[in-house]
Amino acid sequence: MNHKMVSYILGRILFITGVLMVPSLVVALIYREGWQGLWPFLLSIGITCAFGLLISLKKPIRSDFFAREGLVVVALSWLALSFFGSLPFIFSGTIPYPIDAFFETASGFSTTGASILTDVEALPHSLLWWRSFTHLIGGMGVLVLALAVMPKIESGDVFIMRAEVPGPTFGKVRTKLRSSARILYVIYLCMTGILVILLTLGGMPLFDSFIHAFGAAGTGGFSDKTLSVGYYNSAYIDYVLAVSMILFGVNFNLYYALFFMRSKNIFKNEELRWYLGFIAVGFALICINVSPLYSSMPLLVRDVFFTVSTIITTTGYATANFDNWPVFSQVILIFLMFIGGMAGSTAGGIKVSRIGIYIKTTIQEIRVNVSPNRRLPILFEGKPISALLSRQTSVYLITYAFMFVIFLMITALSAPNFLTAFSAVAATFNNIGPGLDMVGPMGNYAGFNNLTKFTLSLAMIMGRLELFPILVLLSPRTWRRG
Amino acid sequence: MNHKMVSYILGRILFITGVLMVPSLVVALIYREGWQGLWPFLLSIGITCAFGLLISLKKPIRSDFFAREGLVVVALSWLALSFFGSLPFIFSGTIPYPIDAFFETASGFSTTGASILTDVEALPHSLLWWRSFTHLIGGMGVLVLALAVMPKIESGDVFIMRAEVPGPTFGKVRTKLRSSARILYVIYLCMTGILVILLTLGGMPLFDSFIHAFGAAGTGGFSDKTLSVGYYNSAYIDYVLAVSMILFGVNFNLYYALFFMRSKNIFKNEELRWYLGFIAVGFALICINVSPLYSSMPLLVRDVFFTVSTIITTTGYATANFDNWPVFSQVILIFLMFIGGMAGSTAGGIKVSRIGIYIKTTIQEIRVNVSPNRRLPILFEGKPISALLSRQTSVYLITYAFMFVIFLMITALSAPNFLTAFSAVAATFNNIGPGLDMVGPMGNYAGFNNLTKFTLSLAMIMGRLELFPILVLLSPRTWRRG
Repeated sequence: MNHKMVSYILGRILFITGVLMVPSLVVALIYREGWQGLWPFLLSIGITCAFGLLISLKKPIRSDFFAREGLVVVALSWLALSFFGSLPFIFSGTIPYPIDAFFETASGFSTTGASILTDVEALPHSLLWWRSFTHLIGGMGVLVLALAVMPKIESGDVFIMRAEVPGPTFGKVRTKLRSSARILYVIYLCMTGILVILLTLGGMPLFDSFIHAFGAAGTGGFSDKTLSVGYYNSAYIDYVLAVSMILFGVNFNLYYALFFMRSKNIFKNEELRWYLGFIAVGFALICINVSPLYSSMPLLVRDVFFTVSTIITTTGYATANFDNWPVFSQVILIFLMFIGGMAGSTAGGIKVSRIGIYIKTTIQEIRVNVSPNRRLPILFEGKPISALLSRQTSVYLITYAFMFVIFLMITALSAPNFLTAFSAVAATFNNIGPGLDMVGPMGNYAGFNNLTKFTLSLAMIMGRLELFPILVLLSPRTWRRG
Repeated sequence: MNHKMVSYILGRILFITGVLMVPSLVVALIYREGWQGLWPFLLSIGITCAFGLLISLKKPIRSDFFAREGLVVVALSWLALSFFGSLPFIFSGTIPYPIDAFFETASGFSTTGASILTDVEALPHSLLWWRSFTHLIGGMGVLVLALAVMPKIESGDVFIMRAEVPGPTFGKVRTKLRSSARILYVIYLCMTGILVILLTLGGMPLFDSFIHAFGAAGTGGFSDKTLSVGYYNSAYIDYVLAVSMILFGVNFNLYYALFFMRSKNIFKNEELRWYLGFIAVGFALICINVSPLYSSMPLLVRDVFFTVSTIITTTGYATANFDNWPVFSQVILIFLMFIGGMAGSTAGGIKVSRIGIYIKTTIQEIRVNVSPNRRLPILFEGKPISALLSRQTSVYLITYAFMFVIFLMITALSAPNFLTAFSAVAATFNNIGPGLDMVGPMGNYAGFNNLTKFTLSLAMIMGRLELFPILVLLSPRTWRRG
């Protein structure tokens, strides 16, 4: 382990994080929050930037940087982000307990959207802005951002990007990492900007439009209303957000191909077809199942489409209270929670490509059991699935299940019932936000004890980083000398 | 596919099944149930044996018999067993609906112990006997029995045994399959006999002792009392049954090694140590968690030990109503439900060895992520886990999860809540019996609709046969000519 290099990069990331708090100062000025609105941010920016500068003062001489360093720096950065990002909440006194503030910030950066706040409307605008801005930063990844804006560090970029960008394969935008990180961020910010405009056109106040655009872009789900998107009660807003969330759940490499390479056959992408297929099937099944609850067909379609979109993209905005839906629909929703969005998108979950690879591998295995001597290659995206990829996907799912059980056991210690415990873990580990029962769309996470809040915070970060960075960080071998 | 060979073996199995109903006639005579008790069995025996003879009249000329034929014959046999075995319930009118009778019989043969009966005590002795006798038959496997008693068919024995005996590896008793099938059955029946004697010594009536010994030996869990083992309220009986269940959850090859090869180091067996470890940890955690509910320490220890034993061995006898235990204990129990017993035992679940292999593979994968260039072999039972075994274990778990989701979706259609649906699938697919809430230890499966009852019946058989036989049976490729 090259500790000095890790500390150097971590310091740079923290400095950038401090700078990213500056827009909140502007918001505090616009809304005339006075000194009370400004000082928590000024102090937080000061502490974060100072600490960042301090640990990155000296550029290290040894520049060796490999997979392990990449995983460790990503894991440490995200933990540090969640800690330093929580300072404004603590200093302002709006979230007085550090563990609650850590939970809320981890939930923001990991684009989960789970909240311990019982009254969101009570927060000043500057803090509401910062809370949702973490979604925007976390969605595309803070280290990817660092790669895009910082001068080239060393040869380790590829390991950082691989550790932070979700999905089993690392996408096709490989060459010239630094410039592709920039391109991805430009596409991302442009799409967010268009969404802000569309929401404003639908009558949403400008500030709220920013908040909800950040939440949809990062597939996070923080709202500035306790009733979430249901507050606006507008078909236009529901449909704009539902479609946007689905778009932000798409692999950004496809947009790169579409806009810059003028590719006309992105619908040939197999993962995209699986993704749209899951949405269509989930939508159809739930529509049939909940139809007795609705007297109006357009409202049924609108609520179900919005809910399917918000759940599969792991955003977590709510319009309908699906906690009251029949058990079958809830099972479908839980299933969609685990699938999540596409690899290389801002969405969480297991990822559509992994599910696709895993279904195909399973079918193949059943075939081999029938005719042991016929082993045909399994194709995904038109290419054979290598033994390595197939094994990695299996191990990922198994590790995922293993961590799920551990999180579930700890959460069960302070949950009122099994459904709350199970759906709380599913909703945080998959970066969705609301679960069912106590943590349902109209509930929150305030009722858990500190151990559970910390565990679920870790689950959110682990889910966002796809397990391995945090596991590597916790492995004793990582910290052995040599 | 050699259809004639499949039909020939299936016929022989059905004939044996018919013969296995004969002891029920004796029970009917002993308890003077008269013509009303005899004729349902006489008719069932007649139909089953006649059908069996009919389809196995002509010994096929082509004797080729491979993995596919082995899987298909095992799957068909178990479906046919559950159908023909349900006839006495239907003819006697005690379970008038065929789907209910099929569920109850599939639950018996698969050693699940899930019941649709609301009043067990209302059944005549002959039917109670047959109901529990299916546990004894299903525990060790009806095809293994056929191998033990039938004259040698052809070279396909190994494929049949591999398809029916649970566990990832096929154990060590490899050579001379036919004689080892006999040895396994002898050990099994002797242990059951000893248990009958021990229960009788504890004051349990002889008939009840048989019933409960069958249930414990097959790790099934049918009782002749609605209150299950709790009815007797005896510490001696609780402990005898708890220890027996744990013993029947052990790989029978270890008993073979212990009794016939005078092996002194069975505790060196890694799977056994994992198994005892899971029991110890589960016991300790639940004891701590439920202690506030108990005023008496001995009763606490007794109830928790019995419950942990009944759940990890997937038996499903009940003394304490764990539906009232805290959520943490329920999560531990659900976790134990999925682990199940050892490979090559009569228990269900995923099996301890698979869990062990999977935990070790996962740890290895995390290590590889830390130091990509160091790949040390992973050992299980002192031997390196081959890439093939590791892949097969992963695919098994993934297929398992996949089928679980499908079963859950169908069950959710007629379940009152998520916990009922989830635990019903967990309890049937893992061959346990009681779940939580509506299907808890004091509840039953009568409340589900016919589609769910059929689906859960299939889940029980699929769980007992470890997925692939039924999947192969459902695969269109199996039925293609060629």
